[in-house]
Amino acid sequence: MASHLVVLAAGQGSRMNSDLPKVLHKVGGAPLFAHALNAGAALEPERSVLIAGHGAEAVRAEASEWDEDLVVALQEQQLGTAHAVAQARDALEGAEGDVFILYGDTPFIRPETLSMMAAARAGGAAVVVLGFEAADPGRYGRLIVEGGELLRIVEYKDATEAERAVTFCNSGVVCADAAALFDLIDAVSNDNASGEYYLTDIVGIARDRGLRCATVACDEAETLGINTRAELTRAEALFQARRRTEILEDGVTLVAPETVFFAHDTHIGRDTVVEPNVVFGPGVTVESGATIRAFSHLEGCHVGARAIVGPYARLRPGAELGNGARVGNFVEIKSAEIGEGAKVNHLTYIGDANVGEAANIGAGTVTCNYDGVFKHRTEIGARAFIGSSTMLVAPVRVGEDAMTGSGSVITSDVPDGALGLGRARQTNKDGLARKIVAKLRAARDRGRH
Amino acid sequence: MASHLVVLAAGQGSRMNSDLPKVLHKVGGAPLFAHALNAGAALEPERSVLIAGHGAEAVRAEASEWDEDLVVALQEQQLGTAHAVAQARDALEGAEGDVFILYGDTPFIRPETLSMMAAARAGGAAVVVLGFEAADPGRYGRLIVEGGELLRIVEYKDATEAERAVTFCNSGVVCADAAALFDLIDAVSNDNASGEYYLTDIVGIARDRGLRCATVACDEAETLGINTRAELTRAEALFQARRRTEILEDGVTLVAPETVFFAHDTHIGRDTVVEPNVVFGPGVTVESGATIRAFSHLEGCHVGARAIVGPYARLRPGAELGNGARVGNFVEIKSAEIGEGAKVNHLTYIGDANVGEAANIGAGTVTCNYDGVFKHRTEIGARAFIGSSTMLVAPVRVGEDAMTGSGSVITSDVPDGALGLGRARQTNKDGLARKIVAKLRAARDRGRH
Amino acid sequence: MASHLVVLAAGQGSRMNSDLPKVLHKVGGAPLFAHALNAGAALEPERSVLIAGHGAEAVRAEASEWDEDLVVALQEQQLGTAHAVAQARDALEGAEGDVFILYGDTPFIRPETLSMMAAARAGGAAVVVLGFEAADPGRYGRLIVEGGELLRIVEYKDATEAERAVTFCNSGVVCADAAALFDLIDAVSNDNASGEYYLTDIVGIARDRGLRCATVACDEAETLGINTRAELTRAEALFQARRRTEILEDGVTLVAPETVFFAHDTHIGRDTVVEPNVVFGPGVTVESGATIRAFSHLEGCHVGARAIVGPYARLRPGAELGNGARVGNFVEIKSAEIGEGAKVNHLTYIGDANVGEAANIGAGTVTCNYDGVFKHRTEIGARAFIGSSTMLVAPVRVGEDAMTGSGSVITSDVPDGALGLGRARQTNKDGLARKIVAKLRAARDRGRH
Repeated sequence: MASHLVVLAAGQGSRMNSDLPKVLHKVGGAPLFAHALNAGAALEPERSVLIAGHGAEAVRAEASEWDEDLVVALQEQQLGTAHAVAQARDALEGAEGDVFILYGDTPFIRPETLSMMAAARAGGAAVVVLGFEAADPGRYGRLIVEGGELLRIVEYKDATEAERAVTFCNSGVVCADAAALFDLIDAVSNDNASGEYYLTDIVGIARDRGLRCATVACDEAETLGINTRAELTRAEALFQARRRTEILEDGVTLVAPETVFFAHDTHIGRDTVVEPNVVFGPGVTVESGATIRAFSHLEGCHVGARAIVGPYARLRPGAELGNGARVGNFVEIKSAEIGEGAKVNHLTYIGDANVGEAANIGAGTVTCNYDGVFKHRTEIGARAFIGSSTMLVAPVRVGEDAMTGSGSVITSDVPDGALGLGRARQTNKDGLARKIVAKLRAARDRGRH
Repeated sequence: MASHLVVLAAGQGSRMNSDLPKVLHKVGGAPLFAHALNAGAALEPERSVLIAGHGAEAVRAEASEWDEDLVVALQEQQLGTAHAVAQARDALEGAEGDVFILYGDTPFIRPETLSMMAAARAGGAAVVVLGFEAADPGRYGRLIVEGGELLRIVEYKDATEAERAVTFCNSGVVCADAAALFDLIDAVSNDNASGEYYLTDIVGIARDRGLRCATVACDEAETLGINTRAELTRAEALFQARRRTEILEDGVTLVAPETVFFAHDTHIGRDTVVEPNVVFGPGVTVESGATIRAFSHLEGCHVGARAIVGPYARLRPGAELGNGARVGNFVEIKSAEIGEGAKVNHLTYIGDANVGEAANIGAGTVTCNYDGVFKHRTEIGARAFIGSSTMLVAPVRVGEDAMTGSGSVITSDVPDGALGLGRARQTNKDGLARKIVAKLRAARDRGRH
Repeated sequence: MASHLVVLAAGQGSRMNSDLPKVLHKVGGAPLFAHALNAGAALEPERSVLIAGHGAEAVRAEASEWDEDLVVALQEQQLGTAHAVAQARDALEGAEGDVFILYGDTPFIRPETLSMMAAARAGGAAVVVLGFEAADPGRYGRLIVEGGELLRIVEYKDATEAERAVTFCNSGVVCADAAALFDLIDAVSNDNASGEYYLTDIVGIARDRGLRCATVACDEAETLGINTRAELTRAEALFQARRRTEILEDGVTLVAPETVFFAHDTHIGRDTVVEPNVVFGPGVTVESGATIRAFSHLEGCHVGARAIVGPYARLRPGAELGNGARVGNFVEIKSAEIGEGAKVNHLTYIGDANVGEAANIGAGTVTCNYDGVFKHRTEIGARAFIGSSTMLVAPVRVGEDAMTGSGSVITSDVPDGALGLGRARQTNKDGLARKIVAKLRAARDRGRH
């Protein structure tokens, strides 16, 4: 059956003490709202709707960057969860199947949990509510279940003693029949103490109409919501702990897992070794048998099999390392392919470039890719040998098997097999160093400068 | 009422296994003794006296660097706490009001606690002793209190069974009437098993003279004293945990708080993001909305609003980044202003310089500020474009809207809007690279070198 | 009495999910098998035999690199522990004294424990088995001891209820009389459910022959075996925790011990300060009073007393820093001596070089040590001053008290006291920068590039 996602993301998050809308804060390098979308991705949803409110413009911008097919609907006033879902009406016009209602500040719902909810829907329930056994039920709403049917959701303040003794609590996540959802929503009233339209009310309305309601249970940890920066850091820590465990199980060596930070989409091949203190930003794939040495920082890049990266290597978006390539210390690579077996070992910036296989880039080399207005590309041929501190003023090409003399500024192409040189001849001035120092010291001793 | 501080800092700290006097070991980048002074700073003390003994010379040097108004008094022999306080007599000659007696190895007493002690003094007590409810009272001295009055302090070894059952223990911190303190001290004898003059004895003496004594209670954690390196690392960990919590509450995003290290005086603005693995040394202020990326190291610097720093940026003392400035990877900035919106993105050393707004500094640039004897300054104008690997031999000025060619050594000023160039023309030697390699390989194959 | 070691290292370790043989995974920078050898090193063993099986070739290669006297014996089929030990027969031909049987995946046995086993052997036992009081004995084999004698080792599945109630369990580590061991092994049969030859059977056989068997007890933590990557990371964490505690007790300051990683052979002198986030690879010695600043990475190097390293310094194998030397940020040193008081403060690569005492190396300097085939050396004399971004094309020598101009490419020797220069004269083109920018912007505005 077709699935659709509605992610509520309109809240202000005032307890975050931030100008950034809450759902744009990140866990694992992805904004919070994206985690809800990721959980639903396994359902291959037809339509996905994000309900924005506070900071809607910023949310819209980030949403379109995240997924251009994502519809953002605006909830101008925050009048309750049912009112929020109602804003998805146009986007879901004519939709059939399941509508999943998720929360932009609740990043840990698992895909398997949503699948169980879909199965419960397929079993005949018009509305499926996700519950959890609460270790400390406190003031959560209680799910009152009998004979496998959800009778009602009771807010804590309205609950009887017997109902308060129930420990099966409401997560807020709902899966409902697309054909029925908005009719149910329309029937929700705001005739309550807060004057808000509560999504939970659709359970009672559905049952009044003879529709079945059911529950699915998940682990309490999945329902962790984020309201403060302290909770955000706990969520990040929980996310990292899970990813580290998964990656170890994939056959990766993490010398000190607690010092390695992954993004939501990091892929690392078997028998790759990751040393302490490595940060993976979004968009990184590392093939098998590679070594990522200490203090490396990778984002948006691909590292080939058996490549060696770091220590202190920075791979920026668009860095593509071939098999067995080496990128060493204090080296930055951006939008550049580094060919198979090529070496960029020290103190170098390679940006907007192609480096051929088995090429060797000397220490201190810079691709001068920016003229103040445009970016230009540098091409370095296979087996080329770039002398230390060569400035490659792009656009420029150094041919296959070519060399550059160290300290050269290369402004025009170097043909295959040629040596490009651009430097002044050395001269020695005998005794001059001693004279200079003597003079400087005398100046210092006279107290002048 | 006027306040004065006496910080006891004469102990050897032999369990530290160090040549450094114990009170000079650091927590949060500040020597231990300074934490006691910081706690007292909110009282705006008139006079502050540090009692030095072991390693007095080193303590004196560090103390004057910390606060030039701080008086250091020497306790040549360590004859007990009352004897230590007696060394402050000259420095407090004629002082009125409250004298707070603190400990150079006890860094966690809170300002609020000292305020409560001042209030108790204002309520009529001549001597106020700081106590704590001990989780495990062990061999601590006990505070015997009755009807709100402190009757006496009993050493564990002298205590009766009933007294040992008391869990309210002596922290050693005292606030006493300045007019009475030294008379009380004079009356203390060393007629006891250790032959030492104990400060605790002033309670009994005061009561004998009809003076009231009182107590104030603090949290046991505040009284944590440091005697071993293991305790020092625990104190550092406790300090960091507190700072991280405070900074999160200030509305700062710390992706992985446990990997970020703050100094005692770090200030970070709201909505600034701090990525994992960042070290703040003393003297750092970061304005709102900035981003401090992973693996950055900051000391004695100021980072403007919305500036982006790192990854792998090192800001040393005197680095001043304007709003929106960018300092990127493998860049060191020292004693330099980086103007609003200016960019220093890669592999650069900027020291003793002014960089104008919106200037762009190419990769590999170095301000050659040191001639072996003197340091000189470099001026870079607004919107200037410094080509990669430009050597700026100071003193030198590159004008506004000026450029330098990459690989140039700039030894004289470049006027506004001009292009400064200093490099040899490139020549290509066709086929020479292939010949060189062939020759080297032949040599290798002959087994020669 | 003479001692000999047999380390069983033939297992596949399939639960590691790795192509690397299990015993080659590392803890503290040393392969697992080496930890067993290290534990035995205090016994000054005459002969050491490693029993390899799965991945024997890789194990042999690593073993010979670790200790060239180590004998590697091949166990082609894995037919049980007794069968594994039998493969050491040739290597131990004619050996006398004690044979210790250890495990390549059990890195935490302490030297003191082995000494206790040797003492038990000296007390007359032919076979000594190492046991431990298990917190949760589960399915471990039980050691049945009576009157100080080990009667038998009972596998859990063969144990009676009374035997299962025993909590003294078998670690597998054995010390046996070299003269008797292989006769006992020969008598072991594989007539059991698994069809394997069990080393534990030698206890029963020995007793049948009237030989005494005894036990020694160790802490359960010593017997930790490694079967999964999760266990490997726990072992690494345990190893690091122990080393950090030891190093603190040696009088070293570790500001944040949990962020510092040591190797099995790291030596750090008293009153050295190690800041957060430092990685020590194998082979590092740091003398007293040095400072290793944050984000530094050291391997195979020696740091003299009071030297200051980092932040962001990388010392590679063969780096030898004299007393008081300074190596600063973004600096890589390899196979090079840095003389007493010399400074290499920023953005520099020094490889295959000697730097004289009190020399000063400017930012951006590179020793161009590699010509594509050979490595060459650079000599820098005492008190020499190398200007920023000097390329030192090795083999080359800069004399004592000599200087090089910044941006120079030095291809031939600079005599003592001379100034070596190799750079083009600066020229300024008035107004050209403004023209260039205007032209580029016009191109951009025309939408061309």
